[in-house]
Amino acid sequence: MPEKYQALLQKVNQIHDLEKAAQLLAWDRQVIMPQAGNEIRVQQMTTLRQLIHEMFTADEFGQLIADAAAETADYPYDSNEASLVRYLQDEYADRCKLPADFITRRAEISGRATPVWVQARQDNDFAAFQPWLEQVVELGQEMAGYYGYENDPYDALVDKFEKGITTAEVRALFDAQKEATLPLLNAIQEQGRPVDDALVNQHFPIDQQKAFAHYIAPFVGYDFDRGYLGTAVHPFASSFSRWDARITTRWYAHFLNPSLFGTLHESGHAIYEQGTHPDLARTPLARGTSSGIHESQSRMMENVVGRSWGFWQRHFPALRDHFPDQFNGVSARDFYRAVNKVKPSFIRVEADEVTYNLHIILRFELEQALISGDLAATDLPTAWNDKMQEMVGVTPPTDREGVLQDIHWTRPSFGYFPTYALGNLYAAQFHAAAVEQDPTIGEQLADGDATPLIAWLGDNIHQHGRKFTPGELVQRATGKPLSHRPFVRYLIEKFTDIYEL
Amino acid sequence: MPEKYQALLQKVNQIHDLEKAAQLLAWDRQVIMPQAGNEIRVQQMTTLRQLIHEMFTADEFGQLIADAAAETADYPYDSNEASLVRYLQDEYADRCKLPADFITRRAEISGRATPVWVQARQDNDFAAFQPWLEQVVELGQEMAGYYGYENDPYDALVDKFEKGITTAEVRALFDAQKEATLPLLNAIQEQGRPVDDALVNQHFPIDQQKAFAHYIAPFVGYDFDRGYLGTAVHPFASSFSRWDARITTRWYAHFLNPSLFGTLHESGHAIYEQGTHPDLARTPLARGTSSGIHESQSRMMENVVGRSWGFWQRHFPALRDHFPDQFNGVSARDFYRAVNKVKPSFIRVEADEVTYNLHIILRFELEQALISGDLAATDLPTAWNDKMQEMVGVTPPTDREGVLQDIHWTRPSFGYFPTYALGNLYAAQFHAAAVEQDPTIGEQLADGDATPLIAWLGDNIHQHGRKFTPGELVQRATGKPLSHRPFVRYLIEKFTDIYEL
Repeated sequence: MPEKYQALLQKVNQIHDLEKAAQLLAWDRQVIMPQAGNEIRVQQMTTLRQLIHEMFTADEFGQLIADAAAETADYPYDSNEASLVRYLQDEYADRCKLPADFITRRAEISGRATPVWVQARQDNDFAAFQPWLEQVVELGQEMAGYYGYENDPYDALVDKFEKGITTAEVRALFDAQKEATLPLLNAIQEQGRPVDDALVNQHFPIDQQKAFAHYIAPFVGYDFDRGYLGTAVHPFASSFSRWDARITTRWYAHFLNPSLFGTLHESGHAIYEQGTHPDLARTPLARGTSSGIHESQSRMMENVVGRSWGFWQRHFPALRDHFPDQFNGVSARDFYRAVNKVKPSFIRVEADEVTYNLHIILRFELEQALISGDLAATDLPTAWNDKMQEMVGVTPPTDREGVLQDIHWTRPSFGYFPTYALGNLYAAQFHAAAVEQDPTIGEQLADGDATPLIAWLGDNIHQHGRKFTPGELVQRATGKPLSHRPFVRYLIEKFTDIYEL
Repeated sequence: MPEKYQALLQKVNQIHDLEKAAQLLAWDRQVIMPQAGNEIRVQQMTTLRQLIHEMFTADEFGQLIADAAAETADYPYDSNEASLVRYLQDEYADRCKLPADFITRRAEISGRATPVWVQARQDNDFAAFQPWLEQVVELGQEMAGYYGYENDPYDALVDKFEKGITTAEVRALFDAQKEATLPLLNAIQEQGRPVDDALVNQHFPIDQQKAFAHYIAPFVGYDFDRGYLGTAVHPFASSFSRWDARITTRWYAHFLNPSLFGTLHESGHAIYEQGTHPDLARTPLARGTSSGIHESQSRMMENVVGRSWGFWQRHFPALRDHFPDQFNGVSARDFYRAVNKVKPSFIRVEADEVTYNLHIILRFELEQALISGDLAATDLPTAWNDKMQEMVGVTPPTDREGVLQDIHWTRPSFGYFPTYALGNLYAAQFHAAAVEQDPTIGEQLADGDATPLIAWLGDNIHQHGRKFTPGELVQRATGKPLSHRPFVRYLIEKFTDIYEL
């Protein structure tokens, strides 16, 4: 290994270990820690974040990167060495733009805002959260200023989650997709054969839900020998290495979908991290390349696989074994239709595939307005409800079912929401390419076996970690740039069948 | 706050936060992490330990301590400021004696030895662990050399767990206690009314054991709002702040004692950390002052309180409610006698109060022999078994029930074992002093209420954290230096009653 590169790698490993320690502090805070521990935990997380920032933005580290870049200039573009250096150059430049005191404030405010949001959501009390949201928005505006932008401050923010994409590109994709699927939504609502989903709203003992989650996750590729399923109010996946990639789920005694599809969703995230190449371990390349690509993997397992007819044709008998009373007399087809019911609703994470992206477009537009200053935090609940009525056709009865439902705005992670909808577009495009490149993938999937698809994802996406940008990756894997069309085709084909249009 | 001291405190907070992050990596490794994650986890822990060592032993940190010491020279001895500076001066001197590469090797070897020991214990395969033990012993010898000693390298090691005590002092205490309690042991074996403990060896559903652990721990002062009960192969307590002090337990379906008394034991450790004064938070004073004093608190709750007649007179009905079939027709007195049965046995953590210290003295002697080089690792199983026969009167049928039973020698923590026996001595002395100072403490305890005793411990021990050395603390709290006599008196009084001597 070249000498300078080796010196760089050693430092990178050290910083990465600290990153993972900080991530464990965060994981533990959500899953295990008693609430009383929060104040000190936030300080611990802040200290680690500060230290990481100091180490990452030190002149000495910049020099190490520059030296290693010169030394590896002839390495192939897709080599681990060239890819790591490329990533670090970009990330170093980005991080150096943020002052140390900003990092500290950001960590402190976010750390404190999270439990306030948890309580505010529980109490349906937006006013309690509002002063914190205001601080978080200010952090977002300040951050956009540090990163810099030409016209739209939101450009600076979305780029941090989806490297290389612009607000205008996102808007174009969203508008095209919305327009192309609106006729489908209308057809479903006006002519579709009604779907009864009462069967997922029965009493499902939580222990049995847990047992089924442990049964089903391996069928979308999740390896429990390198993982752990915990409980969290707001489910997430987090990995400490490819050998320890964890998922969390929430359990409702009277609603099966959150735990079932939540588990499949987080499993999709986790298998991405479990599938990163071992040679990338202890480097920042050992993770998904962007939020959108990450979400494509979770949505792939939650929906493209996990809400497919083949999958339930195969696994419904096992589900019925776990809940014999609840599913007495229910057919696989009944269940399949129930979990694909299209119904405009309040909660993003429970939205069906046809309306889901509308929830995202709403957030995308509100975020832009908050960041540009066109919308004040105090007016957000009203704006939210108005837009819900206009776009989704329903008005949330409470803020808990409206503006308070997501954890995301406890951090200045503006620009993150759109990656959820991008994830759906990527997922459909990956799925279409995989099936086109190898028809047996589609045949096996129709038979409920996702193994060949998972292998394709492993080869084309997971193993590369963060070596390529999302744009590069989608081009390499599918031969085309991101488009809304595969997703539109996927929705029309699937829901034409389900609603017998 | 004086300026130099404030600068010191800021750095101390930062280092302490990293310590706690490292501790969480370790806690999680034992309680949550999938086995596959170990290799990378060890590297993460090593990185943190390295960084902490660098920061703690930096000349700049030494200067900060010296400056703050000069600035606070007039502060009262028992002030937080003077106590922190005193502790740091001592710790700084100690840590500077260990080279950075030694710290790294120690963390790596210990990290890797732990899962080997877990497997070796499971497989009853000492040979698999032996090469690791050899490395750990060499680390211990090397460490003693760095710390320095006059005659006995073991002096240098025991001092790290029980500041200020010497091997000779420990030996004198142990010999005196052994001699004074031998007649009791003989009397029990020869003239005692037999105790039947079959009732604790029935089937106890683990869920019910967990429920009872959650019921009983608060009665020895454990605050679940600032804690968490997890599961671990080798139970331990670990705190991330006084607001997040956790315990772990192991559960056997056919043996009640490990989970029941293990929970009380770890609760005793945890209430020490939960009871440290809030002003000590984010400093190294926010923990127990020594291993021996810490153990005194766990043994206090496990035995002095948790195996007392008053305690079970009060709580046996609740235990029977949890296990109505198992304890049908059993009286509180039957249970009390059963959990106090004296019987020479193989496993330290299950040993009764009369023979427990013999297990420790055995380890104390073997450790000294390993460190001095008089005993080779390969000869350890034989030496162990011979000594067990000689001292306790039994020979373990397997190494799993012998030399492989404890996790301690996966780290070079030689000098730690004796603190277990010292803990019993301290506990009896604290208990005697508390009852003497305030007779209602004893009266309430006889009635099963430990609250006044817990309050006394909070005032005299817990709140001080690590402000005083163990010698200072025992003198302040009891007015006397440590003696074996209160423990001997306690044993004789208690077991004369139980065995009707």
